[in-house]
Amino acid sequence: MAFSEIIDSLVRIAGRENVLTEDEDRRVYSYDATSQWKAMPDAVVFPANTGQVEGIVRLADAKGVPLTPRGGGTNVSGGSVPIRGGIALVMTKMNRILSVEPENLSARVEAGAVLMDLQGALAARKLIFPPDPQSFLGATLGGIIAENAGGPVCVKYGVTKQYILGIKAVIPAAGRAVEFGGVTVKNVVGYDLVSLITGSEGTLGVITEAVLRLMPLPAARKTLLALFDDLPKAGEAVGMVFDSGTVPAKIELLDNWVIRSINRTAGMKLPENAAAMLMFELDGRPEAVESDAAKVMRVCMAAGATGTTAAGNDAEALSWWRARSAGFAAVFSAAPTVLAEDVTVPRSRMPEFIRKVTGICKTMGLEVTVIGHAGDGNLHPSVLTDQKNAAHFEKAKIAVDRIVEAAIEFGGVLSGEHGIGLEKMKFMRRTQDPFFIEAMKQIKKTFDPRGIMNPGKIWED
Amino acid sequence: MAFSEIIDSLVRIAGRENVLTEDEDRRVYSYDATSQWKAMPDAVVFPANTGQVEGIVRLADAKGVPLTPRGGGTNVSGGSVPIRGGIALVMTKMNRILSVEPENLSARVEAGAVLMDLQGALAARKLIFPPDPQSFLGATLGGIIAENAGGPVCVKYGVTKQYILGIKAVIPAAGRAVEFGGVTVKNVVGYDLVSLITGSEGTLGVITEAVLRLMPLPAARKTLLALFDDLPKAGEAVGMVFDSGTVPAKIELLDNWVIRSINRTAGMKLPENAAAMLMFELDGRPEAVESDAAKVMRVCMAAGATGTTAAGNDAEALSWWRARSAGFAAVFSAAPTVLAEDVTVPRSRMPEFIRKVTGICKTMGLEVTVIGHAGDGNLHPSVLTDQKNAAHFEKAKIAVDRIVEAAIEFGGVLSGEHGIGLEKMKFMRRTQDPFFIEAMKQIKKTFDPRGIMNPGKIWED
Repeated sequence: MAFSEIIDSLVRIAGRENVLTEDEDRRVYSYDATSQWKAMPDAVVFPANTGQVEGIVRLADAKGVPLTPRGGGTNVSGGSVPIRGGIALVMTKMNRILSVEPENLSARVEAGAVLMDLQGALAARKLIFPPDPQSFLGATLGGIIAENAGGPVCVKYGVTKQYILGIKAVIPAAGRAVEFGGVTVKNVVGYDLVSLITGSEGTLGVITEAVLRLMPLPAARKTLLALFDDLPKAGEAVGMVFDSGTVPAKIELLDNWVIRSINRTAGMKLPENAAAMLMFELDGRPEAVESDAAKVMRVCMAAGATGTTAAGNDAEALSWWRARSAGFAAVFSAAPTVLAEDVTVPRSRMPEFIRKVTGICKTMGLEVTVIGHAGDGNLHPSVLTDQKNAAHFEKAKIAVDRIVEAAIEFGGVLSGEHGIGLEKMKFMRRTQDPFFIEAMKQIKKTFDPRGIMNPGKIWED
Repeated sequence: MAFSEIIDSLVRIAGRENVLTEDEDRRVYSYDATSQWKAMPDAVVFPANTGQVEGIVRLADAKGVPLTPRGGGTNVSGGSVPIRGGIALVMTKMNRILSVEPENLSARVEAGAVLMDLQGALAARKLIFPPDPQSFLGATLGGIIAENAGGPVCVKYGVTKQYILGIKAVIPAAGRAVEFGGVTVKNVVGYDLVSLITGSEGTLGVITEAVLRLMPLPAARKTLLALFDDLPKAGEAVGMVFDSGTVPAKIELLDNWVIRSINRTAGMKLPENAAAMLMFELDGRPEAVESDAAKVMRVCMAAGATGTTAAGNDAEALSWWRARSAGFAAVFSAAPTVLAEDVTVPRSRMPEFIRKVTGICKTMGLEVTVIGHAGDGNLHPSVLTDQKNAAHFEKAKIAVDRIVEAAIEFGGVLSGEHGIGLEKMKFMRRTQDPFFIEAMKQIKKTFDPRGIMNPGKIWED
């Protein structure tokens, strides 16, 4: 069967206007937010409802055509890159917020709903969906679930998987949509396949709807900065804050490179010689937030901070968080190629790990920035290089290998919030138990016997 | 091979003193906390370490002998009853708390560690492991994980699966212990097999160690009571509390039967004619707890409560919670046989559901008490009957069927925190998607190809 017949079938299922086949159109869906991974899909399709997704999955399954689901394409692991070609299944037209139930603290959404749109709808009801990947402007809930996304706020609230009550997904083995889980927080009916699908990177089926667990919008929030003359010392301060019994909503670590970048781009007047800055957000009842904020500032000073300051009001806090986002974004364009890591180490080992990372890069003569979600040990050490300078790029890749190995050695993990995708696949065999990899392959066969769902991801064949 | 040879092998692995074969000894491990399920194991073994568990699993796998892991035996679904005989693997001698890491908010425990012992060790460090199944005096962490246990505090903190970072389990297919997950909250390395094993009721392998996610001990707690002249009205008050933006740590619902039982057993002076009582616990910073408590009392009065009262101090609060536990326990001995349900419905549908349950039982001339964790819609309607009175018992079982069907119809689930075990197995086929059941069977084969792990549970063969 020629691929043109596949395209004809896609057109019959989703309509002519929802199938793209031109080179320049397909190119748009050939990459994600990483800088290294690109692969062209043979066709791009935008389903309008679960029924159409069922038709597309059955078609791909019958014909053995790779099918790669995709939301906003904001992921940073190569996870949504259609590395084996075939069909890019773009969920962005299934973007409805189907219901919000304040009494049940839950919402039902279509997979293509964008996180920012959801937060807007929830804010009007004084609710939040806690996970906050920094791609929230474009990230869809389906992608957020498929990658089990994190974000700054996970320090206090945990990651995406802690907020998914139910999933509707089209499963190739079933040839149709299956509902997993339900709408209640307590649910112990058989194996937890909701958690299994969450974080499976589109390899088990196509998520079309989800039931989300919500929280009440905190009544108050407060943002603080603490400056340090030494990067690992900032890491130590994080441990001391937890030891003091306070759990901030966010603790972000910014290094000197980012501090200077923020001064330039956001017009802030942070000390240019500060080695590191911690940004805290505290949330909850106003009285508690005030006393927690005072405590965090005291603890930081005791930990050796050179100074602390609190945002005077919500507008100032928002401007600081925007500056922080711009600063992080600046890292990714600081060099022609940026190898941004996503390792996570136990919080208690973070200072040591930061020393190790800066040591590795210094020894190799490489520039590195160390930023990340310090509150949960999730760091994004980013090595600056240029893919076109083969020697330098090779050296940078070796440095990244060493950083990942160090994270594992320190009791950490390969990826905290970005996923394995294509980016971390090569580390799987040497860092993971062979049974774990074998079990994943078998589980995939149960859901997707012909291996059409996002093939070539997570493990090397 | 005679079973005596299996016993000889068990003795070689675990030592003579750790293998029980006498009738009266085996009988102790033939039941759990349900009243209907009993089955004798052929042998009982108490391993001392993961290495011994590996030996026992390999033996059972090689010989095709059923192996049922067991902690404190406090579970209420038949889950730890060795329904096919074989070996009862009792984990209570592997009860060490291996480490507590306050900076990382984590602890590593052996599977046989008892929850109360863990909480004692954590309290000294001002930490808690939030899940609080009411069997905490005897429940082991391995069992709590295997059943994905709940408890009153899950309203605010979520269930067990939200607090498990890593699991070491002996997997028959691997023939050895495998480490899943890690020690960090953020971890997106492949499929989430930690969550898959959590709640799998001992059917995939033997959990020998776990890494737990902890929280700081709340600085303050406050307990409140609100009385109602109508049971569903209490359910409505719960929804209104959430709507007000407050999330209490616990919201327990007690009906007239339990209120009177508490007056008798705990010497409290609650109004004997109150139809229902809600018990709230609020926790957090002292300032926030006080203002939240005042708000909850206001909301309850607005919802039609006949009165509210707050515990004057921690000692009084503790005595109230002990009375509540005694009241719940009294339900289970209120009749020769008590069919205690564990259904969960969306919070918003709880009042309607309570009306339905009392209606079903009234029509059938059956006595029922409705108690439960109202904050998360997890109710334990308990039908009083007598297994020896065949006609009455049949009628009671029909009522339970109707209660479960109503819960499903209201968007709820079969089991909120007790698990399927043997108790709910018969409901699986008619309430669950056939693909879900098939996928569980296939996943089990991946972990346990010969089907030795706790056979005869969750789904009917």
